[in-house]
Amino acid sequence: MITLTSDFGSPYPAAMKGVLCAHTDARLVDIAHDFPRQDVRTTAFWLREVLPYFPPATHLVVVDPGVGTDRAALAIRAGEHVLVGPDNGVLAPVARQLADRHGGAPDDDESSAGIEPFEIVVDDPESATFHGRDVFAPAAALAHEAGVGHLAACDEFVPTDGYEDLRFPEPAVGSGDATGEILVVDGFGNAITNVPGAVLDGRFGERIDVDGERVPVARSYAHVAAGERLVTVGSHGNVELAANRGRGDETFGVGVGDPIELAFE
Amino acid sequence: MITLTSDFGSPYPAAMKGVLCAHTDARLVDIAHDFPRQDVRTTAFWLREVLPYFPPATHLVVVDPGVGTDRAALAIRAGEHVLVGPDNGVLAPVARQLADRHGGAPDDDESSAGIEPFEIVVDDPESATFHGRDVFAPAAALAHEAGVGHLAACDEFVPTDGYEDLRFPEPAVGSGDATGEILVVDGFGNAITNVPGAVLDGRFGERIDVDGERVPVARSYAHVAAGERLVTVGSHGNVELAANRGRGDETFGVGVGDPIELAFE
Amino acid sequence: MITLTSDFGSPYPAAMKGVLCAHTDARLVDIAHDFPRQDVRTTAFWLREVLPYFPPATHLVVVDPGVGTDRAALAIRAGEHVLVGPDNGVLAPVARQLADRHGGAPDDDESSAGIEPFEIVVDDPESATFHGRDVFAPAAALAHEAGVGHLAACDEFVPTDGYEDLRFPEPAVGSGDATGEILVVDGFGNAITNVPGAVLDGRFGERIDVDGERVPVARSYAHVAAGERLVTVGSHGNVELAANRGRGDETFGVGVGDPIELAFE
Repeated sequence: MITLTSDFGSPYPAAMKGVLCAHTDARLVDIAHDFPRQDVRTTAFWLREVLPYFPPATHLVVVDPGVGTDRAALAIRAGEHVLVGPDNGVLAPVARQLADRHGGAPDDDESSAGIEPFEIVVDDPESATFHGRDVFAPAAALAHEAGVGHLAACDEFVPTDGYEDLRFPEPAVGSGDATGEILVVDGFGNAITNVPGAVLDGRFGERIDVDGERVPVARSYAHVAAGERLVTVGSHGNVELAANRGRGDETFGVGVGDPIELAFE
Repeated sequence: MITLTSDFGSPYPAAMKGVLCAHTDARLVDIAHDFPRQDVRTTAFWLREVLPYFPPATHLVVVDPGVGTDRAALAIRAGEHVLVGPDNGVLAPVARQLADRHGGAPDDDESSAGIEPFEIVVDDPESATFHGRDVFAPAAALAHEAGVGHLAACDEFVPTDGYEDLRFPEPAVGSGDATGEILVVDGFGNAITNVPGAVLDGRFGERIDVDGERVPVARSYAHVAAGERLVTVGSHGNVELAANRGRGDETFGVGVGDPIELAFE
Repeated sequence: MITLTSDFGSPYPAAMKGVLCAHTDARLVDIAHDFPRQDVRTTAFWLREVLPYFPPATHLVVVDPGVGTDRAALAIRAGEHVLVGPDNGVLAPVARQLADRHGGAPDDDESSAGIEPFEIVVDDPESATFHGRDVFAPAAALAHEAGVGHLAACDEFVPTDGYEDLRFPEPAVGSGDATGEILVVDGFGNAITNVPGAVLDGRFGERIDVDGERVPVARSYAHVAAGERLVTVGSHGNVELAANRGRGDETFGVGVGDPIELAFE
């Protein structure tokens, strides 16, 4: 199975699918092609949330503002999965997540614990502006056909000792409060923070302070009236600012990158 | 085969696909993921129109404003199909349609005639806000693997004697007139009514009154000039208010829920 | 394999998928369903760019402003591919492209060189407004099941000696200048011209005049600063007006159909 992720909109993903189908009979599954254009961080967040639900697969990821420059092209074995995409950080958080879930013994070093990065040998692609089609799709097909344990046997994949990392900001969680920030806003308008949902344990049905205002804590959206705001634990496990049948980002007046303060007493 | 329908936009459907692929090799086909958010009625309309064209399949449907509340989770056998989704009415019209097409003897009662509802046993899902991923996708995979005739053999499906219904308003059709309402507007701007297309039989090329104004009746859009409005029979079999190479809803000034009066003499 | 292309948005493509799945087990791959509505020329451009990357397949194409009129329905063998859609020009450019790549001997006439057009026999379809579902999807399934070399053996496909052509305007390329026009603008805002990229050979890192203003020529977007404009060779092989991390169409102030003048000295 090969999954596809990009910021291409339409119809460029279809050219990648054509190349994949010309090289392999692998099943193709779209993750999304409408990530905010050139937004490496948002894409990295969603890949980390979504890809771990898949069985072992090859994941083709092309959000690539540096296409055609000298940024490297990567294939990363992460646990039983392979990630293929540009070396700009977009693959790093999900690689850690997949390796944690399927990794080796705890005392292994990072590589043997589940992450093996390779640089893809790029040999004069047809275009300098569409490596998704001309570099990454062929590499993903090759990785799929080789199999997750056999990348090192392919001349096209050269072991590398590093790649660009990307870390999400850490929240500060105290006994009676927590500070963090809005990481992403989803299509419903739910504002997803980096604060772990565990801070709301035992508080459903109560109220807490969010940026100084009292807000109900609810298990899910429809536990408050239509249009009313709430804080809940989203499907990603983090605290989420939401509004029942409305947009949390607009109701709370927050956007990506905004700081957020929660106080529980 | 498992089809997927939601109002999730992107990328949440991919998490459901991951769960499905982890549980089954069934073929996956997207119906749509951009239905108006939390709009049970519009989704129910389109499911009724689209799903009957499929061969027997399991249909995963998640338009679920009550996620995380005590609304039940349903698996409904309807003819040779299985529908999986929340108990909010979204499955009811298509269940009737599928049962009518593939049902048992006319004197059977509803259940044996083709509709068998089951309540899905929900056992502490990972999240309270994403039952599409944590409840309905696993249930759809289970239903597919069990097979349409074997739901009752699964502990996870408990026969139930009722579920929430949803009925579209009935039109009033006389010998020279008809009154109804706009059920949905499609992406082209065609305003789809609940008036059966049969009222236009024999009138193509003529004009009728629509809300008091004379409008041409045409077999299809391009039978009138570009920009001109028309009434026709849409692909769903109902009267549709349209404009050639334009938007019918804007040209007629109508929207979902508006009453509509047709007069033929 | 059957690919699907339309301007339907959602959820009408799903009805076509249902019909296809009811007639064939062929793999289905979406090209795009969000082409500008009724825009035959833009769709024809993208099909010509994308479909040649696919292995031999049947391609179902429904951008069909004349649905329900007497325009013909076509199945065209083009090289090892089959194209199915309305006779309005949308299939013509890609048919030539596919035939060129996989065609017969150079001295063959057009038909034996790789293009064989057939008219689809249309026998009282269920609707006059959705031939994608009622005419073209069944025909695509039939063509797939028959196989690319066996269309003539099907009663439903009648050889025809002509169909509507569509040609993109030709650029005028001199030794020190070129004039052309903007053919399409992609989702990133890149303005794609009809001027062949070869005019930029050897000029990367230099500047040329675009409509009288000096603009850098770059191999790819990130070779100029964020927000800065550039001319490059797009993945289609043509000159493209772009902006790094911005929209080329807005930065240059151009749109589809606008003339463009390049001067190199």
